[in-house]
Amino acid sequence: MSDRLEGAIEPVDVETAASHVDSDAVVAVSGFGAVGYPKALPLALADDDRDLELTVVSGGSVGKEIDTALVETGAIARRYPYQSRPAAREAVNDGTIAYQDRFISAVGDEVALGHLPKPDVAIVEAVAVGADWFVPSLSIGHTAAYVRAAPKLIIEVNGSIPREIGRFHDVYERELPPNRKPIPLEHPADRIGDSRIRFDTDTLLAVVETETPDDPYSFREPSATDREIATNLATVLEAELERCSIFDDRIALQFGVGSLGNALMGALSDIDFGDRDVYYYGEVFQDGLLEMIENGTLTGASATSFALSVEGQRRLFDDIDRYSESVILRTAALSNSPALIDRFGVVGINSAVEVDLYGHVNSTHVGGSRVLNGVGGSGDFNRNSPLTITTLPSRHGTETSCLVPMCPHVDHTEHDISVVITEQGIADLRGRSPRERSRLLIEECAHPQFVDDLEAYLERSEANGGHIPHHLESAFFWQS
Amino acid sequence: MSDRLEGAIEPVDVETAASHVDSDAVVAVSGFGAVGYPKALPLALADDDRDLELTVVSGGSVGKEIDTALVETGAIARRYPYQSRPAAREAVNDGTIAYQDRFISAVGDEVALGHLPKPDVAIVEAVAVGADWFVPSLSIGHTAAYVRAAPKLIIEVNGSIPREIGRFHDVYERELPPNRKPIPLEHPADRIGDSRIRFDTDTLLAVVETETPDDPYSFREPSATDREIATNLATVLEAELERCSIFDDRIALQFGVGSLGNALMGALSDIDFGDRDVYYYGEVFQDGLLEMIENGTLTGASATSFALSVEGQRRLFDDIDRYSESVILRTAALSNSPALIDRFGVVGINSAVEVDLYGHVNSTHVGGSRVLNGVGGSGDFNRNSPLTITTLPSRHGTETSCLVPMCPHVDHTEHDISVVITEQGIADLRGRSPRERSRLLIEECAHPQFVDDLEAYLERSEANGGHIPHHLESAFFWQS
Repeated sequence: MSDRLEGAIEPVDVETAASHVDSDAVVAVSGFGAVGYPKALPLALADDDRDLELTVVSGGSVGKEIDTALVETGAIARRYPYQSRPAAREAVNDGTIAYQDRFISAVGDEVALGHLPKPDVAIVEAVAVGADWFVPSLSIGHTAAYVRAAPKLIIEVNGSIPREIGRFHDVYERELPPNRKPIPLEHPADRIGDSRIRFDTDTLLAVVETETPDDPYSFREPSATDREIATNLATVLEAELERCSIFDDRIALQFGVGSLGNALMGALSDIDFGDRDVYYYGEVFQDGLLEMIENGTLTGASATSFALSVEGQRRLFDDIDRYSESVILRTAALSNSPALIDRFGVVGINSAVEVDLYGHVNSTHVGGSRVLNGVGGSGDFNRNSPLTITTLPSRHGTETSCLVPMCPHVDHTEHDISVVITEQGIADLRGRSPRERSRLLIEECAHPQFVDDLEAYLERSEANGGHIPHHLESAFFWQS
Repeated sequence: MSDRLEGAIEPVDVETAASHVDSDAVVAVSGFGAVGYPKALPLALADDDRDLELTVVSGGSVGKEIDTALVETGAIARRYPYQSRPAAREAVNDGTIAYQDRFISAVGDEVALGHLPKPDVAIVEAVAVGADWFVPSLSIGHTAAYVRAAPKLIIEVNGSIPREIGRFHDVYERELPPNRKPIPLEHPADRIGDSRIRFDTDTLLAVVETETPDDPYSFREPSATDREIATNLATVLEAELERCSIFDDRIALQFGVGSLGNALMGALSDIDFGDRDVYYYGEVFQDGLLEMIENGTLTGASATSFALSVEGQRRLFDDIDRYSESVILRTAALSNSPALIDRFGVVGINSAVEVDLYGHVNSTHVGGSRVLNGVGGSGDFNRNSPLTITTLPSRHGTETSCLVPMCPHVDHTEHDISVVITEQGIADLRGRSPRERSRLLIEECAHPQFVDDLEAYLERSEANGGHIPHHLESAFFWQS
């Protein structure tokens, strides 16, 4: 028996474990930022002879064993609250998988309250397990909430991840309303929980041992456009540090997941933060943050997932002693908590598919219809941050403007966004009327090749009048 | 000297007070739910010989002295964060007034942080004033935050409102981020503050005495449609009381402002809440709630404004002793707090202009362009309530469907809304994929006369594919 299994826990083979999962089960899985999800059970279910119609609820993004292998065998009928692999995306877009996109912060509650389907079984990845506890692996996400909501539990213990990873974890569980207490976290670097998730021993069906590593992230090298956006972001942040006294002693920043977000994190090293403490407070700990901790830019980081490259993971695993002094993994209910984002004044920096002339943001759908990954945590930060920055290139490829007359899908409203940044420039929308916003966005953020078309649209719209002038007949003229 | 002025406070005439206001001043005024706003100063400013270009920031809705008189003399150049009178609406829609619609909960912070223009002067209504304090009148709103942000202060002491109104007040002010503490309110009926707002004595420019009552609300009699919507709402709430254990001992409800909201509040008296404590936790205390307190349906209420009819106001004023045992007025930062809405599990019930086939909600704009009142607090509740209910008639008049293919303006996203109710029926959107939502909304909520058109739109859209199928060329076919 491995030293990862304490007490009387005996592992079983994965097929035995998989046989406990009913063919139409609602399965809640661990996993966030494409790490920390179960791998062996999903592959065994993909090989299962039964005709599966599973509902899969994850914390956030998971890897190929679920959103590729299980999808391709047709085993997933429903999926919540996020997906980010081509196979899952295609099945969602053709209607084969019934999917619903959710804001991350509330998903644990939605499962607990039965607003999403009640789990029949929770399948989670751990680095160690005992009689009534386990230590999650590389992400925490909503795992604790799912384990509490599910009447059955299957645990995969992954021996490829250092057991000491638990030193990053701070699992704090909240009561449900109406007697929910204030979250007692008063500083981004405080710890209020435990490295372990507890479970009711009666629920444990099986423990399986695995050695499969998570699919590491690969970030593309920052493009020239990424670097120009990063320079504009630095300009905005430096001006806010100067202008706004709430950042005098400490600033907390959040960046969206992905190559642009990672490139932007890296660019922070160029900003003079003076004597301030600088914290990352967000969902996902990416490679850019490792560098910032090493060079002293970052005082500390709080996230719910380690979404790292091979090299980043190696650096983290090789020096857990040192990194665990300043890096904390929390539940997604806390990493994305509206109350904490507000309390710490987290500056939210997120990308988008497109922005419209009045500052509405589409971060999920192409052409209004085809979903990409899902809205994820961007909604939690865009709504609750005192300063919300949307970063995106001014165009996709050479033919498509990212500043559009009207977003055909809105994830974040005109009321949510403070500043829009493209490689062309900066539009500070705060306090501006919609008509002022439209001029500013065209002037500062549009790619020059689209300016004439956008101005012609505005003229047609303003002839109609209204607080937010639109010309509905031609609002989507680029797509028609 | 009136007994409303304590210590060395001497009143001045209103023209003298108005002369302290610069012609291009940023003026932050008290007022929420169209009560508790200054009346004499705005009228004096409307009569002012100078060419005024004021920026007016209110807590929420204010009365005719500001949004009619001052608007009609052309004295307002900018306006935040809400307006609800025809004159203001017209000026906003024709672009004469630069307006920005904001979610209510954050406006105090936005003023404090300079995201909205920094006030030059705060003009507030009170029922009593002393050397460094005043007692607000019929609303609290963001008054405390504005007084703190403004370097100058003018107070109107309104003798027409009982001084004892202060017994309802519970003013609790929060620190700014990043050292903001958790709000220590653990129950909707708790008090954590003070009846007074404090100010820096150096800022006080003038105190003016007035006797002008607030414009009382008048609610229309509930229509047949209102009553059918109320019946459907009762069905939904009764099912949730049965289904969801978080409501076993206590439920807190919020209703939007207006005649439909008021009619829905009244309908609660028909629900069997059993032994549960039932609280109102929202922005505005309307007539419907008085009745519910009298008949014992409601255990207590927390709001930020008394938006009552003449008769309702008389009932309240005549029995302050009794009502102040169970009714509390708080700051809007608390009445609309995302953290508290979540903590208490407040059920949010708000109306809308239109809903689209996938559950996006427009609560502010006609034809995507012409603003009505503003988004107000609906965003705070729709986002943070565990159960978010949108109520609206299936059609406006006899020609316009309120269920539309695509909302030409989105205030609340598909991720925000749990249940849609019209007089036709109930669509529970929780856990449903967009394609499922569209069928359910047509079947349950559409007016029969529009069903064929909506189904034809869906067919065109689904032929295009996608997670949220749309046919952009005809998304606004009803408006073109």
